Amino acid sequence: MTGHIACTVTGPLATVEISHPGKHNAMSRTMWRELRAVFEQIQRDESLTTVVIYGRQHFCAGGDISEYAGFRFHEDSLRDFHEDDVWGGLRAMLDCDVPIVGKIDGNCMGAGVEIASCCDIRIASDHARFGAPIAKLGFPMAPREAALVIRAMGELSAREMLLSAAVLDAGEMKQRGFLNQVVVGALLESAVQACTERMRPLAPRAARLNKQAFRALAPADIAQDAPDLIASAYRYAGSPEHREGVTAFTEKRHPRFTP
Amino acid sequence: MTGHIACTVTGPLATVEISHPGKHNAMSRTMWRELRAVFEQIQRDESLTTVVIYGRQHFCAGGDISEYAGFRFHEDSLRDFHEDDVWGGLRAMLDCDVPIVGKIDGNCMGAGVEIASCCDIRIASDHARFGAPIAKLGFPMAPREAALVIRAMGELSAREMLLSAAVLDAGEMKQRGFLNQVVVGALLESAVQACTERMRPLAPRAARLNKQAFRALAPADIAQDAPDLIASAYRYAGSPEHREGVTAFTEKRHPRFTP
Amino acid sequence: MTGHIACTVTGPLATVEISHPGKHNAMSRTMWRELRAVFEQIQRDESLTTVVIYGRQHFCAGGDISEYAGFRFHEDSLRDFHEDDVWGGLRAMLDCDVPIVGKIDGNCMGAGVEIASCCDIRIASDHARFGAPIAKLGFPMAPREAALVIRAMGELSAREMLLSAAVLDAGEMKQRGFLNQVVVGALLESAVQACTERMRPLAPRAARLNKQAFRALAPADIAQDAPDLIASAYRYAGSPEHREGVTAFTEKRHPRFTP
Repeated sequence: MTGHIACTVTGPLATVEISHPGKHNAMSRTMWRELRAVFEQIQRDESLTTVVIYGRQHFCAGGDISEYAGFRFHEDSLRDFHEDDVWGGLRAMLDCDVPIVGKIDGNCMGAGVEIASCCDIRIASDHARFGAPIAKLGFPMAPREAALVIRAMGELSAREMLLSAAVLDAGEMKQRGFLNQVVVGALLESAVQACTERMRPLAPRAARLNKQAFRALAPADIAQDAPDLIASAYRYAGSPEHREGVTAFTEKRHPRFTP
Repeated sequence: MTGHIACTVTGPLATVEISHPGKHNAMSRTMWRELRAVFEQIQRDESLTTVVIYGRQHFCAGGDISEYAGFRFHEDSLRDFHEDDVWGGLRAMLDCDVPIVGKIDGNCMGAGVEIASCCDIRIASDHARFGAPIAKLGFPMAPREAALVIRAMGELSAREMLLSAAVLDAGEMKQRGFLNQVVVGALLESAVQACTERMRPLAPRAARLNKQAFRALAPADIAQDAPDLIASAYRYAGSPEHREGVTAFTEKRHPRFTP
Repeated sequence: MTGHIACTVTGPLATVEISHPGKHNAMSRTMWRELRAVFEQIQRDESLTTVVIYGRQHFCAGGDISEYAGFRFHEDSLRDFHEDDVWGGLRAMLDCDVPIVGKIDGNCMGAGVEIASCCDIRIASDHARFGAPIAKLGFPMAPREAALVIRAMGELSAREMLLSAAVLDAGEMKQRGFLNQVVVGALLESAVQACTERMRPLAPRAARLNKQAFRALAPADIAQDAPDLIASAYRYAGSPEHREGVTAFTEKRHPRFTP
């Protein structure tokens, strides 16, 4: 069981579920590839006008760390993971012309924050929690993912999450400008429905043109602006710090990092 | 009666009124051209140190839709409208070195949001409402205007307004970072006066140099960065969706859009 | 006594004090040079994982205006001051790979806002006040400094501070997205300690890589994008407005500016 990205279509509405039972819907490599396939399919379907993406109880708790020892400690396979699998999924979301609403409950961490950053509208339960505490695992955020998250939540929050492992609640993330709306948990479903109902009668081609304009005005692809950054981004793969962080997590102990 | 942009000069203070009685101060083509002329005049007048722009009861409810059928359905005339008339007015505001204070009451929608986005300081009544529900009219925001609005209010609010036709109140727009101050309606006039009084004794050349620096650091002209976007931006002119949206509005019925 | 930037190292933590007794820790030229030296030293020290920067009672009230008549009225010496001394200090902070926490109490004005803008995390007392009222002194913000402040606090707040000499309190600056946390004055020390304690066990190399990525994704050096702006930025040096603003301050009278 490596988790699954499920897509259900009901008329013009596609509902995408991030599902990894027992792991708070953490993203496995398989799920990143499925995320890409699902959004490429949505992009090809001209009958769709709105996408909702969510995870049951938890939006997505991060990456599936149990897989990490298998590929993270070699530069080439680490690069493949981030540049192909993770960015493949996120880019498919960013390239999707259909408006995407994120319905966010519970943990929205690491990969979850990245997926949420690809949504056009973010509505959260007041129980939702946000962070990217990967410094506890001994590695930095990959450059394209960092650029995406910075753009969605601003440098203030991105630096706080990455440099101090801060976890911020939904109210705080609303105030920080990352969320459109925060409601009590019991009203999350109806708040998202009210939003999709408001979107239903709108001009679908206008929405696609608007999304294309947003994309052209602020391209997500940083490869042209920061080629050196991407070229050197995965050299830490085999470092003692990286190994210690990931290993400590799988051994359920605190990591011991030295300056 | 196609509305009017009036400018009154009192010492170093210019007051610009957006006026279109009976239409909540919606912008006609004539008014866009007058907006440009007024701000070009202000820019030439070295005795001015502050501009206040406002609309009585409503800042500006949008564009004058009654004119739309006359030019929107042909690509060339649609382009002329957005690139020459609308952008001509907005660019004159952006190119103005004199600090501009927006006094915002009532509806601030579409064109109103764009004009407000050109202000340096925005003070609103708690009754003010903000939005750009043009997806109901079947068309997207023009690229230069979208870039302007995104920069002033952030992607979160711009996407919500354009993709879900959201209308947000002044308190929300304060929290979103679009407004400097929100006061109860009865205090709007005095809050703006307190601001212009605070500005009066300041160094006028320093203000102009600051505005020139702001402009150089974040150029509003996207033509160099997104030429393809502008080249293709008005191809939707004759589309059924666009015609249906504008026609339904003038026939006072709900539009019927199909994916 | 021209003030001093003191650095104390305790294990992996460096504490930098902005100190200019009797002047609310205003930055003299000497202090800008010391700020640079201190952060270059911190950058070279691989045993450090966190920096806290603060000023006793007041973070930093601005520049040391008593020095201004000595160099501000000639273009070359004014350029040297801003491009070498001020930017030298700020750039050393921006180039520092060790995460920097700003502990902000009292006045944080002008130079103080610029130094705070170089911090990764900003925690303030509810007594802290923020502004850059240099328009009262007859001069604009230097371009690199303006770009830095705009990026940290957004155009809305930067324009309000520079064009209307607004002074905003900590609560407002939290809402504007400039501060991570605001606490009552008595809890400032412990709030910053809680933050540095949370940072202590994190992976230090991951933090440095994250900071390098943040820097590469949004370079602080505007010289390539706005060379004309920097070339012409200091021509106002000998202007009557500039002389009047600085002279009036040293003569403890209100300046008289004319449009």
